[in-house]
Amino acid sequence: MMAKSADEDQLYIGIDGGGTKCRATIYSEQHGVLGTGLGGPANPLHGLERTLESIMVSTQLAMRDAGLPLESIYQVYAGLGLAGVNLPSLYKKITEWEHPFKQMFLTTDLHTACIGAHEGGDGAVIITGTGSCGFSYVKGRSVNYGGHGFALGDKGSGAWMGLEAIKAVLMELDGLGPHTIMTSEIKEHFNVTTAMGVAEKMAGQPSSSYAKLARYVFDAAHQGDQIALAIVKDGAQYVSQLAHRLLENNPLRLSMIGGLAEPLQQWLDPAIAKLVEVPKQPPEMGAIYFAQQSVLEQDQKVAL
Amino acid sequence: MMAKSADEDQLYIGIDGGGTKCRATIYSEQHGVLGTGLGGPANPLHGLERTLESIMVSTQLAMRDAGLPLESIYQVYAGLGLAGVNLPSLYKKITEWEHPFKQMFLTTDLHTACIGAHEGGDGAVIITGTGSCGFSYVKGRSVNYGGHGFALGDKGSGAWMGLEAIKAVLMELDGLGPHTIMTSEIKEHFNVTTAMGVAEKMAGQPSSSYAKLARYVFDAAHQGDQIALAIVKDGAQYVSQLAHRLLENNPLRLSMIGGLAEPLQQWLDPAIAKLVEVPKQPPEMGAIYFAQQSVLEQDQKVAL
Repeated sequence: MMAKSADEDQLYIGIDGGGTKCRATIYSEQHGVLGTGLGGPANPLHGLERTLESIMVSTQLAMRDAGLPLESIYQVYAGLGLAGVNLPSLYKKITEWEHPFKQMFLTTDLHTACIGAHEGGDGAVIITGTGSCGFSYVKGRSVNYGGHGFALGDKGSGAWMGLEAIKAVLMELDGLGPHTIMTSEIKEHFNVTTAMGVAEKMAGQPSSSYAKLARYVFDAAHQGDQIALAIVKDGAQYVSQLAHRLLENNPLRLSMIGGLAEPLQQWLDPAIAKLVEVPKQPPEMGAIYFAQQSVLEQDQKVAL
Repeated sequence: MMAKSADEDQLYIGIDGGGTKCRATIYSEQHGVLGTGLGGPANPLHGLERTLESIMVSTQLAMRDAGLPLESIYQVYAGLGLAGVNLPSLYKKITEWEHPFKQMFLTTDLHTACIGAHEGGDGAVIITGTGSCGFSYVKGRSVNYGGHGFALGDKGSGAWMGLEAIKAVLMELDGLGPHTIMTSEIKEHFNVTTAMGVAEKMAGQPSSSYAKLARYVFDAAHQGDQIALAIVKDGAQYVSQLAHRLLENNPLRLSMIGGLAEPLQQWLDPAIAKLVEVPKQPPEMGAIYFAQQSVLEQDQKVAL
């Protein structure tokens, strides 16, 4: 990537915080993307200090990747998409952070994912990865459905599929439920033979550990396993419902994001599957659009 | 309760550890129950040190209640029923504890609950409280089904019912699921109005918090709420299945224990409901029978 001084044109950094990693992208209005950086976990609901640290790590790596001196970060507008900042208390805490940027604009990770997917425009997104959620942003109004976290929400997500698989496997191993080919696969995965063995491996595990098992559900469904098929269809039906609910807000586009977007596609309501469009840009670009739009609105207010 | 010296006849203490409390009962072979004591949480899966402390608190209170000097605890045989000691590593850790008793006999809380319910005899029990589990002890062979913990197992339990209720309420509040009268009840319970409000109240809560919501499910089911009825019937069907599975081991009696035993009764498979018999004694008495049987077997071995 080319080296640039921050003085020549306006620079932006877009930061997308996630449960396992934090992505940062440096963007120049004249030259486009200059560099990227990857940090550790940045979900403030799981730890604020860790989140701020991951933001700084990804920022510094992106600055270095762009060939920019670290001190020029003071010239850079930052857009941040973080989970949980729809909670006013958390939003306030993060805006009180003594950040190094020229100015910082904070919104939810759903919002930045949505503006990214639609390249700055209005639209809706369904996120199905470890968790699941639907979000739309139309004419300045944002709405979201689902989410709510593991295990009370996030239906159709990887963690939900993994949990349903484990439940079915334990039922079979207890002699209380029908046969599923997931049982032998899960037993092999954990190298255990009994229900107690499986339960011990999963006890107290976070949603990400359950999400890792989702591929067994899809594999078994493709082999015609009735239990796995029921899980996949139930999850996909929920995601289709989410989509229909989002469409009530008349978004211009609808995209799906996350590790389950592709494997779920074929199980969706065909009317929905046909509508889903490829995300144009990643969430960190969405964070850059958000910062640009926020600066613009601010300048317009000053001009009035 | 009457004061007794430990020298006059053999004394036993039965201890039943649980997730929220620990019960101890002092028993004399000549005079029956002499005193009882109540301690704090004693589930070694949630903390070994806390468990041992709760055992000692309940023991001391029982000794005082029996009017016995504390030092006579060295003359007392102890029977202990604790969760998780079917895991060899945990069993070993607790047997290595420098306990104050004459001798300590350790088994699972399921085992002591079962021998208690059948007054020392063989039989089977289904436990449906915060969690759920089936256990049978017949001719020296113990088997258990279900359990596995929240939220991967424990179907039909209070925590499971509460979780299913929260899922249904969130679906309705998101406009993704049918109406249930549980929604207004849960909103009022938490004094919130939105899905996010409900999710925030339950995020990261332990199974006991979910179990507290089970009464709303039964209330709504009694009012004919279709969603609540489906949850209660699904839970009760699982418990009936557990019972059928336990009956394959030909237990002499079958009892149900725990806070949901009574409210679930009317929803069970009628063939099972008819078979269920009232537990004769509580788990701490089961722990006493277990200690007595263990001493007897030991004496017989010595005599051979």
